[in-house]
Order: sequence, then structure tokens, then C-alpha cells
Amino acid sequence: MKGEVKLGILGGGQLGRMLLQAGLDFNLYTLVLDPDEHAPCKAICHEFFVGSFRDFDTVYAFGKKCDILTIEIEHVNADALEKLEQEGVKVYPDAQTVRTIQDKGLQKEFYRKHSIPTSDFILVREKEELLENLGFLPAFQKLRREGYDGRGVTRLASEGDLEKAFAAPSVLEKLVDFEKEISVIVARNASGEVTAFPVVELSFHPEHNLVDSLFAPANVPYKLQRLAIEIATRVIEAFGMVGILAVEMFLTKDGQILVNEVAPRPHNSGHHTIKANYTSQYEQHLRAILDLPLGATDIQSAAVMLNLLGESGYDGEAAYEGLQEALAVPGVYIHLYGKKYTRPARKMGHITVLGQTIEEAQQRAASIRNVIKVKA
Amino acid sequence: MKGEVKLGILGGGQLGRMLLQAGLDFNLYTLVLDPDEHAPCKAICHEFFVGSFRDFDTVYAFGKKCDILTIEIEHVNADALEKLEQEGVKVYPDAQTVRTIQDKGLQKEFYRKHSIPTSDFILVREKEELLENLGFLPAFQKLRREGYDGRGVTRLASEGDLEKAFAAPSVLEKLVDFEKEISVIVARNASGEVTAFPVVELSFHPEHNLVDSLFAPANVPYKLQRLAIEIATRVIEAFGMVGILAVEMFLTKDGQILVNEVAPRPHNSGHHTIKANYTSQYEQHLRAILDLPLGATDIQSAAVMLNLLGESGYDGEAAYEGLQEALAVPGVYIHLYGKKYTRPARKMGHITVLGQTIEEAQQRAASIRNVIKVKA
Repeated sequence: MKGEVKLGILGGGQLGRMLLQAGLDFNLYTLVLDPDEHAPCKAICHEFFVGSFRDFDTVYAFGKKCDILTIEIEHVNADALEKLEQEGVKVYPDAQTVRTIQDKGLQKEFYRKHSIPTSDFILVREKEELLENLGFLPAFQKLRREGYDGRGVTRLASEGDLEKAFAAPSVLEKLVDFEKEISVIVARNASGEVTAFPVVELSFHPEHNLVDSLFAPANVPYKLQRLAIEIATRVIEAFGMVGILAVEMFLTKDGQILVNEVAPRPHNSGHHTIKANYTSQYEQHLRAILDLPLGATDIQSAAVMLNLLGESGYDGEAAYEGLQEALAVPGVYIHLYGKKYTRPARKMGHITVLGQTIEEAQQRAASIRNVIKVKA
Repeated sequence: MKGEVKLGILGGGQLGRMLLQAGLDFNLYTLVLDPDEHAPCKAICHEFFVGSFRDFDTVYAFGKKCDILTIEIEHVNADALEKLEQEGVKVYPDAQTVRTIQDKGLQKEFYRKHSIPTSDFILVREKEELLENLGFLPAFQKLRREGYDGRGVTRLASEGDLEKAFAAPSVLEKLVDFEKEISVIVARNASGEVTAFPVVELSFHPEHNLVDSLFAPANVPYKLQRLAIEIATRVIEAFGMVGILAVEMFLTKDGQILVNEVAPRPHNSGHHTIKANYTSQYEQHLRAILDLPLGATDIQSAAVMLNLLGESGYDGEAAYEGLQEALAVPGVYIHLYGKKYTRPARKMGHITVLGQTIEEAQQRAASIRNVIKVKA
């Protein structure tokens, strides 16, 4: 390795920020593109560009400056990625994978085609089609494109819910009677080596429909953990992509594992790995896209991760309450994302709580759960 | 906590860089002063100033921009620190502590005054005084000021060595017949809370007289580990300083522990804590100077840390060999410091090797010890 690798990141939010933080250890030259001039990555990359990662020309021009181009959000211009690939830029994940994943309809069809277990679904284009498929309810209706962090998802229990249905191309997914939601982060490097992080268990925010907390290791029988890892490995190999892929899955009450959806980038369900595992998801992504051997994913400590969301009713310059009290509990670590402004349910940071056992980590987490608040 | 804390760091080398890396989690606004326009901190702080941290006016002007001022090297202008303290800047470590520590003569007198066990010594001003103290040899002669990373230290076994003696104010330290060199990093926050990291064992480079490798936990009887931690705690409490203090000690063949020297800042003997301990030395320093509760110092994994020095015979733009091979070994992590140019024995990075046991970490470390090379 001589001279600096020029790594470009599409998106300058917290995932990009933690990727840059890990990237310091690899002497990279970093460039970031984000529409927000106050994006969390701004002050810590070599070159920051304000612009839209959805715009062909902007992404193409940005990508031409890079040796390797990666993403921290999948809603990017895939046509530009494809052209950059053709012109020799290493685009990880590749345009084809991004295109499939950013459309939840294509994503579901991909699982079906590759015999990857997933819930039953129907693709609908407009509201009228829902009326023709009332027998399919209860179901989740998900917008095919642009959904993120719980936006673009609605639960339709019966005909009476149709007024809140989306009138846009969407996926109608059969409601899964699940016992748990779990996630496995897998990585694949350009040489084809694949590794998986241990299974984590997710708990979602009842109102905002985004990850509220997770704990690792998951309280799931060993055999099902093996199965979840096997499925996640099959998914990343089916995509043939390079980088990390977070595979969110349902563990059903009758012991099946169904893939819910995936993200081809660092993911909220892997934040705890920074503190708790040998290799963090961020370093693993870097190793994968730099085509270095992947790191060991062993757990060093049990962990609970709590998302730190902006409090309801506060909008403006962020102020953090309760840090003193929370950090006084052993094993508690705060990761703030450098966002100047808070708004209700905005992801402002996360807290990792370590313990020698998951019970210890959970007890510590319970004691600080509502202590840190982000107000304005 | 509302609004950003403005943290200034005197020195922009690798220690500052890893401090900034940890500081991302705390939403700090960071300023760095270093004479080298290519310093490792340059691209990752909010404001970078090229200038001398030894110059009164430069340090004073820089410090006036900061809420909290800290150091990553102790050879800074202590008079400027003192004036800044008087004018309300939080200077951690304080001017008085820095002044004592940056003069190895004052440092030794401090230990004597506070009944902290240390090797016997004489202060000498010029070469002639050495002749009057030949009976004190064999001894190390250390320059009182400006020694760093093995520079400014010479071993005088007998009269015949006097030609290589320094002709400057120095400390003549009785040679200690030690079994091991160990280090304990202690931290003290502004509220007076003190914690210690577990004892680590150091191995020095035979030629360059700087840390070559360390392993943790140290292979030292429990009782002596307790004693080492107790002594390190007494040292930081005697200074009454805020921040972290690395206390290097000799474990003598007759079971005594003697303080060798201290550094009031992140230290080479704490690099492994980034990967191996609950809290890293960098986060601990930040918690201390932000007056947050100190973190748990528990070991998550056993670790060996290897310094990555520039190869002899190479001077110029750095190129790294052997990364692929080394990173293929489980538990191996590389931390490069972003230095553009290498020269013989320059600290270019470090490698942390984790294992479930120290034996496992040592075996892994042995297998990669000479694999990574920094050439030009």
C-alpha cells in the first residue's frame, strides 16, 4: 500500500461519520457528498461536497474523484454508480445490488428468485389494487422506494385501514406472527471471503417504527442462530456484493426465519460492535472494500445498544441532559453524532452498555434508559 | 451540556489524532496547534494552527480560543499555560504539573518529597560533576529537559563512558536491576475521582530505547499489581492533576516497585486500551477533562501492542508492506497515524493483537511481528 486511497462516501450522516472514525486507522483520503451543509461528516473528511446523492451528474462528478466509492444510505443514484463502475471506479456495493435493494419490490422478488425465505407479498401500483387483495390483509404496505427509518411503512389490518394506505407503487407484505426481530451483519470482500457477526435481537420503537434498542448476543437457540447466519450468508452471496450487508429477519413463533429487509451498508443493528466485538461493523466494511482480510467478529462483551432520539416537543439546537448520571454507571458509553439541531425522533446518538453477561448489560441499560434526553 | 465545548490540543501527532478520534463521540469543537503543517491531526480537527507549542505568545493566543486546553506532548510553554489558567481557561494537566514533569530533575525531586519510591539520583549541571560522582555509576544520565522517546538518555557504566555523557543539566539515575518494566495509566477528573487501568508489561526496543511492544494483562503477581496501582494512584493524587497520567515503573528483582517516569497525557503504553478495554485511555482522558464520571477500565480481551516503526534505511513517502498477511491473522488490528513521510524508527502506527488469553495474543503477535514493514 503506497500513497493514499481516495475513498468517497455518498451520504454524510452518522453512519458515514462512524465509518470515517474507523477509517482513520487506515490512512485514507476521504471525500463525502451530502445535501446538508451541517452533515455530521463535514469537519472530519478531507473534502466535503454539498449536493444531492440522488442526482446523476452530482454523483458522477463526485465519484470520478474517488478510487473507491461507497454509501452510507442506499437512496443514491444507481445509474451514476453504474457508469462509474464502467469507467473503473470501484463501487462497493455495486450499482446492481443498490438498485435491487433500494426498490423493496425488486428486493422481495430477488428473495423469491433465490429461494431465500421471506414473507409472502404482492406488488401493488395504486390504491385500487388493494381493494382487489383484501383477503391478503392483515399486511404491511411499504413504499417500494424511499422508505427509511420507519417512513413509508403502514400497517393495514382490514378494509377500514385503507384510508391510511399509500397511493404509490408498494409492496404488500403478509403480516408475520413473529416472536423476535433479529439481525445478522455479513461482510464480503472483493476476494469473496465472507464473515458474519453474531445474531443480535432488535426491539423497535412502538411509535416511530425504528430500532429502539438491541442486545447481543441474542437470546435465540443456537440452532436458529446458525440458521440465521446461514441465510444471511446466502443473501450476500446471492448479491455477490462487496462490503457489509445488514440482514434483518423475523424469527416466527413456529421457528422459521424469514428475511425482512436488508441494507448494504453499516447499519443501526451493528453500532454495538464498535465497543463489544473484536472488529466493528465499520472496520469490517472498510476491510471488505479495501480488499483486506476480514476481521474476527467475536464478541468481547455482551452489549445493549440504545438509540438516542430527539425528544418529542423539542426542535432546535440540541442540548443533552443526564450524561453525568448515565456515564456514572459502569459499562455505559455515549456516541453523539455531531448533529447541531434536534427534532422529535431524530437519531442524535446512541448509547452502548457493556456487561460481562447480557443480564448485566440489560440491568445497567434499564437503569439509564430514560436518563439521557435530547432537548433543545 | 448545550453548545459545543471548544477543546484545544497542544501537539498534533498520533496521540492527538487518537484523542480526536475518541472525541468524535462527544461532539467537541476541536482546535490543534502543531509546528508541522502535515501533522496527523490536521484534517480531522475543526481548526488547525501551524505554530510552536513551545512559544509563549503562540500558546497563549491559541489557548484563548479554547474552553479546555490539553496536551499530547509535555514539552509545551508552561508559562503560557499558567497565564491561561489565571484567565479562566481550564488547563488540564495544569501548568504546575506540566512544569514539574517536563523537567526530569524536578520530577525526581517531586517523588522524593512525596515519598514515592523511585531510584536514587543526583542532579548534575555539567560534565565535570560527573567526574565527582563516579562512585554513582553505573547510571543513566537523562537530560532534565526535552528528552522524548529515548532521545536525551545515555547509559554510563563507568568512567570510560564519560565521552558520550551530556554536557547539560541532567539527572544521574542509579541503574536499577529490574526484572520488568511496567506501566499503569491512572486518570483523575476535575471532581477528584481516580481510576487506574490494569498493569501492562513493556518491552523496549534494544536500540532506539522506546516502547517496542507491550502486553496486557501483565504477568506480575497480583500483590505487586495492587502495589503498582496504589503507587500510580498516589502519584496522580500528589500532582492533583486532571487528565490521565501514565506511570512507568520498574519491578526490581527483589520485588520492589520504583517509579521511573510519568507522562501527563495519553501514552504509548495505553494504545491497546482502544481495542482491549471497556474504556480507552483516550476516552478516559476526555471524560476526566470534561469532568464526566470516569469509565470502567476492565479488560475485554488480552492484548499485545506492537509499535510500527519506520524501517532503518528508508526515508521518504511511507509505503506499508505486509498488511494483507498480518490482517489475515485473527485478532490483528492496525492503527496507522496518517504520517506522510517515514524515517528510521519513526512511530508510524501500531498493531494491536487480541486474544482470549495472553498466550493466544502472544502467539498471534509472534506470527506477524516482522510481517508489516514501513518503507519508502
